[in-house]
Amino acid sequence: MGALMRFGKEGQHGLTRRQLLGAGISGGAGFALGAGGGYALGQDGATSGAAPDRAVVPFHGVHQAGIATPAQERLHFAAFDLTTHSRADVRDLLRAWSLAAERMCRGLPAGAENENPLAPPDDTGEAFDLTAAHLTITIGLGPSLFSYAGEDRFQLAAKQPEPLAPLPPLPGDELDPDRSGGDLCVQACANDPQVAFHAVRNLTRIARGVAVMRWSQLGFGRTSTTSRSQATPRNLMGFKDGTNNILAEDPQALREHVWVGASDGPPWMTGGTYVVTRRIRMLIEAWDRDPLADQERVIGRRKTSGAPLTGTQEHDPVDLAAKRADGQPIVAADAHVRLAAPSAHGGARLLRRGYSFTDGMDRDLGQLDAGLFFVAFQRDPRTHFVPIQRRLGHDDALNEYVKHTGSAVFAIPPGTRRGGWVGETLFS
Amino acid sequence: MGALMRFGKEGQHGLTRRQLLGAGISGGAGFALGAGGGYALGQDGATSGAAPDRAVVPFHGVHQAGIATPAQERLHFAAFDLTTHSRADVRDLLRAWSLAAERMCRGLPAGAENENPLAPPDDTGEAFDLTAAHLTITIGLGPSLFSYAGEDRFQLAAKQPEPLAPLPPLPGDELDPDRSGGDLCVQACANDPQVAFHAVRNLTRIARGVAVMRWSQLGFGRTSTTSRSQATPRNLMGFKDGTNNILAEDPQALREHVWVGASDGPPWMTGGTYVVTRRIRMLIEAWDRDPLADQERVIGRRKTSGAPLTGTQEHDPVDLAAKRADGQPIVAADAHVRLAAPSAHGGARLLRRGYSFTDGMDRDLGQLDAGLFFVAFQRDPRTHFVPIQRRLGHDDALNEYVKHTGSAVFAIPPGTRRGGWVGETLFS
Repeated sequence: MGALMRFGKEGQHGLTRRQLLGAGISGGAGFALGAGGGYALGQDGATSGAAPDRAVVPFHGVHQAGIATPAQERLHFAAFDLTTHSRADVRDLLRAWSLAAERMCRGLPAGAENENPLAPPDDTGEAFDLTAAHLTITIGLGPSLFSYAGEDRFQLAAKQPEPLAPLPPLPGDELDPDRSGGDLCVQACANDPQVAFHAVRNLTRIARGVAVMRWSQLGFGRTSTTSRSQATPRNLMGFKDGTNNILAEDPQALREHVWVGASDGPPWMTGGTYVVTRRIRMLIEAWDRDPLADQERVIGRRKTSGAPLTGTQEHDPVDLAAKRADGQPIVAADAHVRLAAPSAHGGARLLRRGYSFTDGMDRDLGQLDAGLFFVAFQRDPRTHFVPIQRRLGHDDALNEYVKHTGSAVFAIPPGTRRGGWVGETLFS
Repeated sequence: MGALMRFGKEGQHGLTRRQLLGAGISGGAGFALGAGGGYALGQDGATSGAAPDRAVVPFHGVHQAGIATPAQERLHFAAFDLTTHSRADVRDLLRAWSLAAERMCRGLPAGAENENPLAPPDDTGEAFDLTAAHLTITIGLGPSLFSYAGEDRFQLAAKQPEPLAPLPPLPGDELDPDRSGGDLCVQACANDPQVAFHAVRNLTRIARGVAVMRWSQLGFGRTSTTSRSQATPRNLMGFKDGTNNILAEDPQALREHVWVGASDGPPWMTGGTYVVTRRIRMLIEAWDRDPLADQERVIGRRKTSGAPLTGTQEHDPVDLAAKRADGQPIVAADAHVRLAAPSAHGGARLLRRGYSFTDGMDRDLGQLDAGLFFVAFQRDPRTHFVPIQRRLGHDDALNEYVKHTGSAVFAIPPGTRRGGWVGETLFS
């Protein structure tokens, strides 16, 4: 295999799709070349068991990949509306998506037929020469799949999980319906943005006639740390973000806050989770005019080091009780770090997996349209995201500098074994 | 220095801004650490002399960097409108931009003052922990800087170069004025998109009160090869793009087609060039439905290998005269590769430096808004881009699958020496 290895586009060792094809290992039969010859079916965080020499994160596992997987650098997230009224169409789409996703996550084209001159290719081709770049594809189901305007389009209403309710109105909402909701979603993360784009584009193509894209969002830089192996990145406010996130290496926190347990119900969601996405526009021009001391007061941390105002190192615990000589709290009552702290929410924690975005100019304001595409996984949005955001939206000093312009919630079914497909527990 | 080196975010060895500051080499005095202790002031393509261990491309040089520099993976391009009527303001802005750009290209914050708690920081911070990532910042001047609606706002009309005329209407134009034109432009290219974004954001911040952003474009994947050291990438049609581009290693072609010569005039542009940008939306849904053989006929090359239809290897010359047994040309009369060939345009060649983009959904069409942000440098758009695009826009078989939705042209002044600034040849 040594001769086939090369230094990949983003500095990863990996085999490109063309090299895989050339080596005759494009078919399922050749998969013994994978991670130890089989799928990594671990327990919590199982899908992080990538084969580093191929830049591959296994698609199959107890849980879907792209959640407790070390966060890749780039994101392409897309939501879809179903145009079909056939339950079988939805089932077939989820099966086709899973099949293509599993191939693309191995660094292969989305389909096997790309050489027949008389047919449109099964893959659009822009990733032919690229490695898998640690691509993960995570598939989710929106509340409107189960019931939409009182209608049970797909005979699924009885199976709708209680936690999968549309989010209630929240303080700070300035939501654009064209950037919110959706019957289905696909989260594609990779270290190469062209690989993530390619995945979303090909799944969109496969959905033709059954579903159409409703909105999509590119993220150019991760803003969360989801593994002990990763340094904390900075968001577009210039602050380190995700310091106290749930990590892939913390199975207890994942069980407690992220994965749906057997006793949670419904049974088809065991091993799954729920994702909330929020497009958070930052008013960066106003932020950039704010003095450093005020920026640090608003966040409750030092900008350069990321240390809490009560400490000196990034990972020092935040001392919310500490007081200045004049008796005032060192971390202000409305500081973001205080209001977002788990202790303010009965211990509730989110697995955040956000990305910085920019969508060019906002011509109405004459300013850069940029911010944070917030992505958070949890066992139940009703006990996690909703109360946290309700509190933040009311009181957070950061509100002066952000507005929420998009919102969605999706159930993320459990992972699948080889030959399985995402959603089969729902449809079986 | 070994202890300070690390494996950077995108697999480059490089020092981060924080490490540079920690080592006490943030000021100009410490610059002896750079590429051999001085700026690489070579001849053609001079700016490619990066110091590989710091992921730095020198800002200074005979020509501006970001043209004959090996194309980086990511782009953030922005155009600006001046809101001032003061010639001094424009001069001061170009000087301030050059100063900040030079710092950022060395991997430093845009300004030196980031620790004063009572002032807004001189740098927005999101790149504090990142390397320079081979950032280049290229600054350009639009036709409207010299004359706008018959008005000579800045006493520059007499100095407008003849090649810097607004582009004439061209076949295939479906231009959005909000994505076209501009008094000034900044092209930021880097191997890390957060570094490119950071550069544009900070230059936008510095321009406050003098200029506002008119439009901007992110490019997530390069579609051109500008150095022999680079593999040919694929565009979003899945084809290799840029096979016959002008390379940094070809000083004769650069002199002939790219750099403005001393005899070309005006004198202030000697060593400069002109850039044309076109936002080319691809109708990828239609393209994806086209059979492979037709896609290859439209382009005139094989999709997988990139070889011309008259050859077997990517770099085989295109034989435009070759005929099939039935007497028809192998490369069709309307194939893109035939109409774009230099031989069809009196030998005129462009230095292309394009990037793939996606801006999410086009809700009018219900399709992905994606394509190619075409960037091409040349000595004179009137003899290079305009006749080439006039021909392509009329006859190219590709026209069925693309439309030009944005357009701009800018003069790119020559590079500067240490202490100089882009545009000083114009204002002196």
